[in-house]
Amino acid sequence: MEKKPNRRRFLKDGALLASMAVGSLQTASGKNLEAESEEIRPKDLHAYGERSRFESSKRTGALGTWPQPTSPPDYHKDFGFRTPLQDSVGIVTPVSLHYIVSHGYEPPDIDPREHQLLIHGMVDRPLIFTLEDLRRLPSMTRTYFVECNGNSAPTGPTGAIRRGPSANAQDTHGLTSSSLWTGVPLSLLFKQAGVRQGASWIVAEGAEKGKHSKSLPLEKALDDMLVVYAQNGEAIQPEQGYPLRLLAPGWEGINNVKWLRRIKVVDKPYMAMRETSKYPSLRLDGKARWFQFQMGPKSVITRPSGGQKLDGPGFYEISGLAWSGGGSIRNIEVSTDGGRSWKDAEIQGPVHRKSHTRFGLAWEWDGQETVLQSRCTDETGEVQPSVAEVAAFWRVQPDFFQKTETVVGHFNAIQPWKVNRDGSVENAIAF
Amino acid sequence: MEKKPNRRRFLKDGALLASMAVGSLQTASGKNLEAESEEIRPKDLHAYGERSRFESSKRTGALGTWPQPTSPPDYHKDFGFRTPLQDSVGIVTPVSLHYIVSHGYEPPDIDPREHQLLIHGMVDRPLIFTLEDLRRLPSMTRTYFVECNGNSAPTGPTGAIRRGPSANAQDTHGLTSSSLWTGVPLSLLFKQAGVRQGASWIVAEGAEKGKHSKSLPLEKALDDMLVVYAQNGEAIQPEQGYPLRLLAPGWEGINNVKWLRRIKVVDKPYMAMRETSKYPSLRLDGKARWFQFQMGPKSVITRPSGGQKLDGPGFYEISGLAWSGGGSIRNIEVSTDGGRSWKDAEIQGPVHRKSHTRFGLAWEWDGQETVLQSRCTDETGEVQPSVAEVAAFWRVQPDFFQKTETVVGHFNAIQPWKVNRDGSVENAIAF
Repeated sequence: MEKKPNRRRFLKDGALLASMAVGSLQTASGKNLEAESEEIRPKDLHAYGERSRFESSKRTGALGTWPQPTSPPDYHKDFGFRTPLQDSVGIVTPVSLHYIVSHGYEPPDIDPREHQLLIHGMVDRPLIFTLEDLRRLPSMTRTYFVECNGNSAPTGPTGAIRRGPSANAQDTHGLTSSSLWTGVPLSLLFKQAGVRQGASWIVAEGAEKGKHSKSLPLEKALDDMLVVYAQNGEAIQPEQGYPLRLLAPGWEGINNVKWLRRIKVVDKPYMAMRETSKYPSLRLDGKARWFQFQMGPKSVITRPSGGQKLDGPGFYEISGLAWSGGGSIRNIEVSTDGGRSWKDAEIQGPVHRKSHTRFGLAWEWDGQETVLQSRCTDETGEVQPSVAEVAAFWRVQPDFFQKTETVVGHFNAIQPWKVNRDGSVENAIAF
Repeated sequence: MEKKPNRRRFLKDGALLASMAVGSLQTASGKNLEAESEEIRPKDLHAYGERSRFESSKRTGALGTWPQPTSPPDYHKDFGFRTPLQDSVGIVTPVSLHYIVSHGYEPPDIDPREHQLLIHGMVDRPLIFTLEDLRRLPSMTRTYFVECNGNSAPTGPTGAIRRGPSANAQDTHGLTSSSLWTGVPLSLLFKQAGVRQGASWIVAEGAEKGKHSKSLPLEKALDDMLVVYAQNGEAIQPEQGYPLRLLAPGWEGINNVKWLRRIKVVDKPYMAMRETSKYPSLRLDGKARWFQFQMGPKSVITRPSGGQKLDGPGFYEISGLAWSGGGSIRNIEVSTDGGRSWKDAEIQGPVHRKSHTRFGLAWEWDGQETVLQSRCTDETGEVQPSVAEVAAFWRVQPDFFQKTETVVGHFNAIQPWKVNRDGSVENAIAF
């Protein structure tokens, strides 16, 4: 006898069919959307907007593509996602496009009401701060860049992307981003805790599975470091350290500890894993430089840049970004003739210390093949070098950078873009 | 005879059941998600990030809730969505939370490759610009606020929200936002087109169904108006005018024409619909002031503010925003004792002209009932008035603002927040 459908059965089948009809609706983390109906609820774009469906600018990268130089291999995989600098305007990176370097872990799913920051070690009063405690304190908003020390490296896994003629600005320089960071000066928290005589370093620790730790000089902490909870006016995104991140302006990205949960005041560096196994920079004698923090002056033309195409001869604005861990950018020069002559570019304010700075130069393209380059000078007078100058500093031949398998961090040589007669633009760095 | 199910039939039923099982999955525009599978595809958060699932700050408002003062009624309905100022930090509003006022239309779904801007009228060379044409030109990034002329109005539909003790900063002042806008100076486009002798106004027109038009003095256009394509470093969102918007810094929001497609150079104002039916301000003689553009100096304490709760006596930073169409904010005073005494607040830079400016003041709450207020002074020396001063200017009793049904635009009186003994904070504006 054929059963009459009852409502309960109908709904059950319906649910089953529903999951078939809409296909393999799984989130990135593998959760089934059927059970997470929130995630497929239609968005209320009046409550919280989204970009146009015609916009497709995105971070590029891959999970676990970086080689593991340690032996035995790291127990987890690194990954990096680069910001699309070729699409950038102004000096602020949209939060959804801020570059990500992560040492093997997806962001922890932190409930901000549960999260705490512990300050302890060589202090008179160990303190625990909730998010709400921190938001009661005087806040500060500053525009700072964060940059991976391997950004624009000619060698290693990032260099492999960087070397080819088809590399674009995202491939070559996409491991830097600039944001308005809001938070509390670390010096204020230390004042409340009372730093003891003899303290000289801090160790900051994240709350992710790997508990990334980083040693930093106390002097820097008391100078301009921040504990930040917001980026570009809203909460930091999970990939950037939600709900709390340490900001060490102008220093290697790895110092900006995400998912910050603990700061210990100590009297020596702690030689945490990333301070001994990978991030130390190569020295000329083959040994490693353990603590190199500050990022040097660097610039890149973002428009026109690799992969873009000029629409015939005529007027174009050359636009790009410059930044330095040494402070503010004082001057940017641009060459449109392969380096024979250089003109001062216009600095298109605002100019902030240790922030991306936008520059522009009016350019009339005559339709001939040429090479575009930029070089910047920071407030300390340090000038961005050529590849040859970097090689001379390292006392190596330029082709060293092509041969070595070691990542050469802090590589800040001038980036040349070749403009072909058909208007196509390509990477022209040569070693 | 029972039919064997065939695949086609199965899929059809499946699709039907699917749409029942998942409920009323419709987008705001009424499209069925079944047919728009893109919208429910799992997100690749490495490519383009999202905020934490614990973050819920959102715009509030309603569709078609504003009364229609015209007779016969408007043929479409207005709507407004307010930005959550009480959650704001720094001076930049996240693009997804920027306030929206729209005159009846959801954003048009514009393909930027098809979009064009026409400049014509009293010019030597009528010109058409594509997005790509505009991006080739010298760009400019500036931080500007945009504010509805009815923001913080005590009367009309917005005032109804504003008057109650439970109103929060979003209810009272949520129709203003501040962004880094990137685009091309309108003066540059006019230079290319060649403005003719005798021209004195422009008319700007949007591409949405209603073709909102606005007359603006040529002088302003040549001063600081921009044609913008980006906001906070990425393309403007559809609700804000994607792909092109006119920016008239410091002037009523309605001048900042969204989905900009046409600018005509003319020799008189064109008395477009919104210039005659609603936006003109009330005059004392009962007639209307047709063209009032510039927003006056205004400030609001965002923390602590209505609806928030203090966690017992102790230290709090009072934080807020000030802005003026007259230029930059020169000074902000805060009273923590109901207006008996005022202290200079700290201006927490950066300070930009015609931009939100963040201020802060350290405050030790003694646990007693009190009232917090802020007042700002702009670079022209204009001071934000009290309710009594606004009433005196209008030659009315303060309760006029409670009785009239007309929206009193440009109302910029000081906003008081009452702190109760239990730490709760409420709206205390009185008329």
